[in-house]
Amino acid sequence: MSLQEKLKEVREYIKTMELLQQATGIVYWDMRVGMPKKAVEQRAEVVGYLSGEGYKFTTSEKVKGFIEFFEPHLDELSVIDKAMIEELKRGYEEIKKIPEDRYKEYVILSSKSEAAWEEAKEKNDFSIFKPYLEKVIEFQKEFLEYTGYTGTKYDSLLDKYERGITVAKLDEVFGELRDAIVELLNKIKSSKTKIDDSFFKKSFTKEEQEEFSIFVLKKMGYDFEAGKVDESVHPFTINFGNKDVRITTHYYENEFRSALFSCIHEGGHAIYEQDIPDDLIGTGLGTGVSMGIHESQSRFYENILGRSKAFWKYFFPEAKSRFSQLKDVTFEEFYKAINIVEPSLIRTEADELTYSLHVIIRYEIEKLIFNGEVEVADLPRIWNEKYKEYLGVEPSNDSEGILQDMHWSDGSFGYFPSYALGNLYGAQMLEKMIKDNPKVFDEVENGDLDTVHQWLKENVHKHGAVYKPADLIKLITGEELNAKYFIKYLNDKYEEIYDLK
Amino acid sequence: MSLQEKLKEVREYIKTMELLQQATGIVYWDMRVGMPKKAVEQRAEVVGYLSGEGYKFTTSEKVKGFIEFFEPHLDELSVIDKAMIEELKRGYEEIKKIPEDRYKEYVILSSKSEAAWEEAKEKNDFSIFKPYLEKVIEFQKEFLEYTGYTGTKYDSLLDKYERGITVAKLDEVFGELRDAIVELLNKIKSSKTKIDDSFFKKSFTKEEQEEFSIFVLKKMGYDFEAGKVDESVHPFTINFGNKDVRITTHYYENEFRSALFSCIHEGGHAIYEQDIPDDLIGTGLGTGVSMGIHESQSRFYENILGRSKAFWKYFFPEAKSRFSQLKDVTFEEFYKAINIVEPSLIRTEADELTYSLHVIIRYEIEKLIFNGEVEVADLPRIWNEKYKEYLGVEPSNDSEGILQDMHWSDGSFGYFPSYALGNLYGAQMLEKMIKDNPKVFDEVENGDLDTVHQWLKENVHKHGAVYKPADLIKLITGEELNAKYFIKYLNDKYEEIYDLK
Repeated sequence: MSLQEKLKEVREYIKTMELLQQATGIVYWDMRVGMPKKAVEQRAEVVGYLSGEGYKFTTSEKVKGFIEFFEPHLDELSVIDKAMIEELKRGYEEIKKIPEDRYKEYVILSSKSEAAWEEAKEKNDFSIFKPYLEKVIEFQKEFLEYTGYTGTKYDSLLDKYERGITVAKLDEVFGELRDAIVELLNKIKSSKTKIDDSFFKKSFTKEEQEEFSIFVLKKMGYDFEAGKVDESVHPFTINFGNKDVRITTHYYENEFRSALFSCIHEGGHAIYEQDIPDDLIGTGLGTGVSMGIHESQSRFYENILGRSKAFWKYFFPEAKSRFSQLKDVTFEEFYKAINIVEPSLIRTEADELTYSLHVIIRYEIEKLIFNGEVEVADLPRIWNEKYKEYLGVEPSNDSEGILQDMHWSDGSFGYFPSYALGNLYGAQMLEKMIKDNPKVFDEVENGDLDTVHQWLKENVHKHGAVYKPADLIKLITGEELNAKYFIKYLNDKYEEIYDLK
Repeated sequence: MSLQEKLKEVREYIKTMELLQQATGIVYWDMRVGMPKKAVEQRAEVVGYLSGEGYKFTTSEKVKGFIEFFEPHLDELSVIDKAMIEELKRGYEEIKKIPEDRYKEYVILSSKSEAAWEEAKEKNDFSIFKPYLEKVIEFQKEFLEYTGYTGTKYDSLLDKYERGITVAKLDEVFGELRDAIVELLNKIKSSKTKIDDSFFKKSFTKEEQEEFSIFVLKKMGYDFEAGKVDESVHPFTINFGNKDVRITTHYYENEFRSALFSCIHEGGHAIYEQDIPDDLIGTGLGTGVSMGIHESQSRFYENILGRSKAFWKYFFPEAKSRFSQLKDVTFEEFYKAINIVEPSLIRTEADELTYSLHVIIRYEIEKLIFNGEVEVADLPRIWNEKYKEYLGVEPSNDSEGILQDMHWSDGSFGYFPSYALGNLYGAQMLEKMIKDNPKVFDEVENGDLDTVHQWLKENVHKHGAVYKPADLIKLITGEELNAKYFIKYLNDKYEEIYDLK
C-alpha cells in the first residue's frame, strides 16, 4: 500500500474516532448543563460505554499497525501528517498501558465523582466528596504505575497538559512570578489609593447580564452560529468539532463582574476552537494545542484585553446606557474597580494580580498529593492554611475553599498550572502583537476588535495542535517562554492604577 | 450453556445497545433543541456514525446466535424474556435485509432532510424541502423492496408503528369515525351556540406561559427530577431510559392554548416513559409499546382530561389568579373556548373534534404516495385541496400547509394514523377507568390527579412493551379495539357544549 493510500486510511480512521468524541462531548455537556437529577446513574453508564469505545479506538491493533507503518517514513510526511501520526502514537502509548477494565471503571467513577462534588459543594460538606476524591487520586496513581513516569509522578501529570513542562521548571517560573507579585502587592497595600467597587454589588438581573455578555461576545468575534451560551455550576467551554463550540457561565445577581468576565474568558477559549481550519478536522490536530496555550487565549481576552482601558473606552458607554446601576460611576472609577486588587477566596473571581497565587496554592497541594505527603482528610485544613499564609484570607467553609473548583473531581491534576502559564504566554504574545500592529489598541478603543482577533487567528488558532507549545511560542514571538513580559505588564498596569510611582 | 446463563448474556448485550441508543437520543435531542446552525453537516455525520453502530448491534452475528439459541425454548421463558427475544428477532429481521451502506446513507440523509424541512418551513418554500422529501420516499420504497411486505407497501409502514394494523382495518375504523364526526360537525354548524375564544389571543408572555405549563405538568405527575421542558420548532417527547424523559414545546405570545395543551400532550407521553419499571430497562421492552398506545396516553391527558370540566374546575381559578388577561372570563366561557369547534389549518392546534380529519388527510396522502399514485411536486396542491374539501379551509402558504409537520422529513410514514388510534384507545380506557373508580373525576375537580395517573400506570405504563397493542387493550378493557366509545364520548361532550339536544 502506498504512503498516500495509507494516509487516506488513517485519516478515515481518525475522522470516525472524532465523530465518537463529538458524541461523547455532547453527552458530557448535557450532564453538566441540563440533565435531570435522577439520570445520574444511567448517564454515568452511557459515558462509561462511550469512553470504552473511545478507548478501543485509541488502543486498537489498527492504530498499532498505523504507527508501525509510518515509523520509518515520518520524514517523508508533511508537517501536518507527521504531527498527526505522532499524536496518534502518543495517545496509543499513554493509554495502552492501562488495562481496559480499570480505565472504564475510572471513567464511571469520575462521572459519579463530579456529581458528588456538585452535591458536596451545594451542601457545603466535604465528606460527601472525600471518598470519591480519594478513589480518583488512587486511580491516578495506579495509572502512573502502568504508564511509568520520568522524574516525579507529578511531572508526568503536568506533561499531560503542557508537554515538556516539569516541576523543576515550574518551581523556577512560579518562583520568579511569586516574588514579583508579592513585591507589587506590598506596594499596593501601602498605596494611598483606595478603590471602591461597591457599585458592582448592586442588583443586576440575570437577563440584563446575559444580554450584555452576549453583546460583548459578539463584538469579540465569538460566532453564535457556531456556538451558544448556557448556564452551569462552573463555567466551561466545550467543542464538538469547530462548528459547535459552546460556553457556559453562572450568573450572580449581586456581582456584575462574575458572569461577564467568565463569558469573556470562555469566549477566548471558544474563539480559538472556532478558528481551527476545516482541513485540520479529522487529523486529531483540530483543536487547541495545550491547556497553557488555551489559557493564554482565554486570559488574553479576559485580562489583557477585557480589563484594559482601551476595551472599556468603547464598552463603558454601552454598559452605562444599559445599567442604571452605573449611572453615577465615572470611567476612571469603573476601570479601577474592574482592576481592584483584593486578596480573596474564589479563584475564578480573583483579581488579575493575585490570581496566580491561587494557582500556586493548588500547584503546591497537587505536588503534596502526588508525592504522597498528605492525606485527603487533611486537604481542607491545608487549603485553608495556605490561603491564610499567601493571601491573608481564610475560607469559612469548604464550598468557598477546597470545593470551589471542579477540576479534581474528574482527576484533572496538573491542569491548574496552565492558568498561570497562560498569563505568561499571553503577555509574551501581546508584546509581539503590538510590535506587528502598533495601533491595535486604538482600534480596540473604537470597538474594533478584529485586528486582535485576526492576529490571534493567524499566529495561534490556525495552527491547531500541529506544533508543540514550546515550538509554537517560539514560532510566534521568536523566543522561548519568558516570564519577564508578564511581570513588566503587571508592574506597568498596577503602578498606574495605584499611583505607585 | 444453560438457559439462565444465555439469558444473562443476552440481557447484557441489550443493555449495552440501550446505552448506545441513549447516547444517540441525546445527540438527536440536541440537534432539535440547541444546536448552532453551522453544526448541521458535522452533526449529521455524528448521527450517521452512531446509527451505523446501532445497526451493527441490531444485526450482528451475536443477535443471530441468540435468536437461534432461544427459538426452540421460547415456551420455557417468562412472559418478559419471551417478549424480549421476540423483539430482538423483529428488530433483526426488519433491518438485516437492508444493506448497511444504504441504511447509513439514509440516516445521514434524514438528518439533512430535517434541517431542510426546518429551513423550508421558516422560509415558507416547499422547493427547499422537495428534493429531500423525494429522496426520503425513494429510500423508504427501496427499503420495502428489501424487507418485503404483505398487502400493500403502506400496510407494512403502518405495521411498523402499530403491529397488526392494516389499510383495510383503518379504512373501516376511520370511515366509521369520519361519518360520526361529519354528522356531529353538521349539527354544530347549525347550532345557535357561538363560542367566543378571542381572550386566548391576547398577549401572554413566554415566561408566564412557561410557569403555568410547569405548574400543570407537576400536578399531572410529570417528574421534573427525571425530565425537563425545552423549546423547539415542533413539540416532541424524547427519553433516554426512564430517568430522563424530556419534552419540548413552542410558545406563541398570542395563543394561550398552544404551548399549554402541547405540554399536557407531551406530558402524557413522558409520564408513560417515566413510569416504565426499572426491571424492564435492559430488555428492549422498557418503553411504550406502540405509537397508538403512546398517543392514547398523550391524548388522554390533553383532551379527555385536559379539556374536561373537572380538570378546569381546579385549574381555572389558578389560571385566573395568574393571568389578568382572563379576569372577565367565566368558567363556562373558558370551558367552551378550550373546546371550540372550528375547522382550521394546523393539526397540532386543531380542536378535539376535527383533529381526526387532519389525520385522515395525511393518511390518504400517504396511501397515494406509497401506491405510487402521486408526484411529490403535486403534494402541496393535493394537500390544499383536501383541506378545502374536508375542513372547508385552505392554506395560504406551505408553512401552514404541507410543511407544518416534521414527520415526513425523517420518513415517519405510517405514523400519523396513530394519533387517531390514540383517540380510540383512550376513550375505551376511560370507560374502564370510570368503572374501576366511579369518583375519579370528582378527585380531578379537587386537583388530585393521582388516581388517573395510578390507573394508567398500573394498567398501561407498567407493562412497557411486553404485550402487543391488540393484546394490551384487551387485557386492560376486556375487549378488542372498538370505535364506539370515542364516538359516544364525542357526542356526549359536544351535545352539551353546543346545546344540540
